[in-house]
Amino acid sequence: MLNKLLAEGIGTAFLLIGVVGSGIMAASLSPDNTGVALMANAIATGCILYVIITLLGPISGAHFNPAVTLAFLLRGEIPAAHALAYILVQIGAGILGVWIAHLMFELPVLQLSGTIRSGPSQWFSEVVATFGLLFVILGGLRHAASAIPTLVALYITGAYWFTSSTSFANPAVTIARALSDTFAGILPGNMPVFIAMQVIGAVAAVLLARRLFAPAPG
Amino acid sequence: MLNKLLAEGIGTAFLLIGVVGSGIMAASLSPDNTGVALMANAIATGCILYVIITLLGPISGAHFNPAVTLAFLLRGEIPAAHALAYILVQIGAGILGVWIAHLMFELPVLQLSGTIRSGPSQWFSEVVATFGLLFVILGGLRHAASAIPTLVALYITGAYWFTSSTSFANPAVTIARALSDTFAGILPGNMPVFIAMQVIGAVAAVLLARRLFAPAPG
Amino acid sequence: MLNKLLAEGIGTAFLLIGVVGSGIMAASLSPDNTGVALMANAIATGCILYVIITLLGPISGAHFNPAVTLAFLLRGEIPAAHALAYILVQIGAGILGVWIAHLMFELPVLQLSGTIRSGPSQWFSEVVATFGLLFVILGGLRHAASAIPTLVALYITGAYWFTSSTSFANPAVTIARALSDTFAGILPGNMPVFIAMQVIGAVAAVLLARRLFAPAPG
Amino acid sequence: MLNKLLAEGIGTAFLLIGVVGSGIMAASLSPDNTGVALMANAIATGCILYVIITLLGPISGAHFNPAVTLAFLLRGEIPAAHALAYILVQIGAGILGVWIAHLMFELPVLQLSGTIRSGPSQWFSEVVATFGLLFVILGGLRHAASAIPTLVALYITGAYWFTSSTSFANPAVTIARALSDTFAGILPGNMPVFIAMQVIGAVAAVLLARRLFAPAPG
Repeated sequence: MLNKLLAEGIGTAFLLIGVVGSGIMAASLSPDNTGVALMANAIATGCILYVIITLLGPISGAHFNPAVTLAFLLRGEIPAAHALAYILVQIGAGILGVWIAHLMFELPVLQLSGTIRSGPSQWFSEVVATFGLLFVILGGLRHAASAIPTLVALYITGAYWFTSSTSFANPAVTIARALSDTFAGILPGNMPVFIAMQVIGAVAAVLLARRLFAPAPG
Repeated sequence: MLNKLLAEGIGTAFLLIGVVGSGIMAASLSPDNTGVALMANAIATGCILYVIITLLGPISGAHFNPAVTLAFLLRGEIPAAHALAYILVQIGAGILGVWIAHLMFELPVLQLSGTIRSGPSQWFSEVVATFGLLFVILGGLRHAASAIPTLVALYITGAYWFTSSTSFANPAVTIARALSDTFAGILPGNMPVFIAMQVIGAVAAVLLARRLFAPAPG
Repeated sequence: MLNKLLAEGIGTAFLLIGVVGSGIMAASLSPDNTGVALMANAIATGCILYVIITLLGPISGAHFNPAVTLAFLLRGEIPAAHALAYILVQIGAGILGVWIAHLMFELPVLQLSGTIRSGPSQWFSEVVATFGLLFVILGGLRHAASAIPTLVALYITGAYWFTSSTSFANPAVTIARALSDTFAGILPGNMPVFIAMQVIGAVAAVLLARRLFAPAPG
Repeated sequence: MLNKLLAEGIGTAFLLIGVVGSGIMAASLSPDNTGVALMANAIATGCILYVIITLLGPISGAHFNPAVTLAFLLRGEIPAAHALAYILVQIGAGILGVWIAHLMFELPVLQLSGTIRSGPSQWFSEVVATFGLLFVILGGLRHAASAIPTLVALYITGAYWFTSSTSFANPAVTIARALSDTFAGILPGNMPVFIAMQVIGAVAAVLLARRLFAPAPG
């Protein structure tokens, strides 16, 4: 179990290093062309997702995301106590990743984001984004387990572009990004609704997957 | 059959969310650099294509495209009634996908595109684009079935750039994009010729594949 | 044999459609940011290379390039008469591909390029680029045959950037691009030296591969 | 052994051709948009990494990096004399690669970089970057050996963006880049600390991998 938590921690920390670090670099290099900045951010995020899921999936299942852990809890595939430990580690390690990113870019470690991300369109975006993410993971487990790292990486790279919220789709990532006043940040007060929407999307995907990705009957 | 139609519907809806949503985001972030916008649009489209074909191919065959369904009908690999149901679901779900994209970006749900896409060069582009798409799918089925998600994703990402129409290559996508007055839109009046050209391209590819990708004689 | 030549023809035509078409689109969308244009051109070229090598490799070997055919001739893996037929088809189909691209973008079909590509640095670039391409193909055949489409696609996508000539690395492509006065063109008079350099690079790679990629002794 | 050293030499030379050459091209095409330039640089580097690791891994193990060779030495998987030979070849071939890149872009062969890369944030970046690289390689060896070329390519493409140093993560690359006064250069005086940080990151990853990626007990 300790190795599992270590894997969840290292993976989530690297995920946030990737998301927040690349956001800082991209916004600093292309301040006048946000399209280029988001493309760098999306590509770097996809790259690190592929890496951490491939390497750590065999150890912890590579959740790195309380919404994913919740989905497996609902499916009865992880005990509640383990799920709680996973989620606490994901949140803690995500914050640590943000702080490491700040240190790497010579920024104050402790920050609070001032970026407003709110309104029905962004909330709906988070439902769609998280629904899609869990749809990808649960469908991948059923039909293409070895492709899951690629599936998740490409899904998120695409979803950065096709949702107005840029697809947080992850409560631990949302909390951690509230602690960074940089390109990838989110106002702490906007956090709770984002997380609620993510939970709704994840639960919806679990329900749909029961039907669409059910194992063929014996 | 219900699961097949559900799969076609979810896949086509996500395809249009990907195409139209990323177009809106890209045009809004890089209004003065259309090259960057089309690159984001092309990459996001390729990403979502890989995802939906990998996940839903084992259920419905992952057509998401009336031109593809027509090709399999011509090859006698799908009954006419099923093909019709597939096509109706693809069209309906494509439209739904566009509306979801509008909702995610706080735009009016019901729109008609004002983007003129017409003239012999764009028509010829659609013939070439759809010929190529079916060539890729039929050749993939013969020689590299497991690579089809990658093949289609990369083909379309490339074809966005090497055709003047940006490769719609899909009647359901064409209809749905007529209902979005955004980056990816097409004037409703320009729709019928685009679709006719797509059918020509698809039929041509079926004929060529009969010769080039015929199974080795017993 | 007819199917082999058909495969070489279709593949080379699509390669040139990809290279020249994406160049026209990219230069037209990002006229003031050549970096974005070359990135689109490089990505589209990589995409189409992956597609045509995967689909047509099992039929013709997917040369699409007289320098590649020459290398296999030197290794005694293709008869001289077949090699000659391959090369003639590659040249003819490459030109056809350029013309199709012009038609798709409403440009005069018959053109001659005015883009000067000359000087020792660009010549040396073509030696390195073609050496690398054959190195990739011959090494891939020895160690990673199933990865060859990915290897060639990524090598060329990278080589567009790390050579000053943007890595033509293909005599049929060079001839065809001399017939397009667009982003990807080359002055006809600069063609012969480029082709000579490509031959030198290819022969050098064949010699190195004899040592480095020799089959393990029986 | 000669073939191994030849493989390390060719691979490291091509790595530096890729890194430095694409940097020169990108900075020249997008002088006012450094984000686009770094994206081209990152993509080209990822492309060449995939290629050289796939092709040469079966011959030499595809280190191309003294920090990687050091890690295998610490794990007792390469004799000290071989490790020394590897490192000397990597350094020599890296420099050769830089000179080839200069020749291809019509620049003076012998240069010294004037680009300052210093300060605690960049030093810490190199620790994180190299830790991550070795983490990827050692984890890949344990769980996903056939994915190592993709893992390393995507990790570095991402790490160019999420570290403030753009992730040199390789002492041979650092030395070679000190000899190029172009986009990818580093002031020779800044080199030693970068290399020290890389060694620290590599050793840390070896220690962690002992625990996290230990083979399952017999």
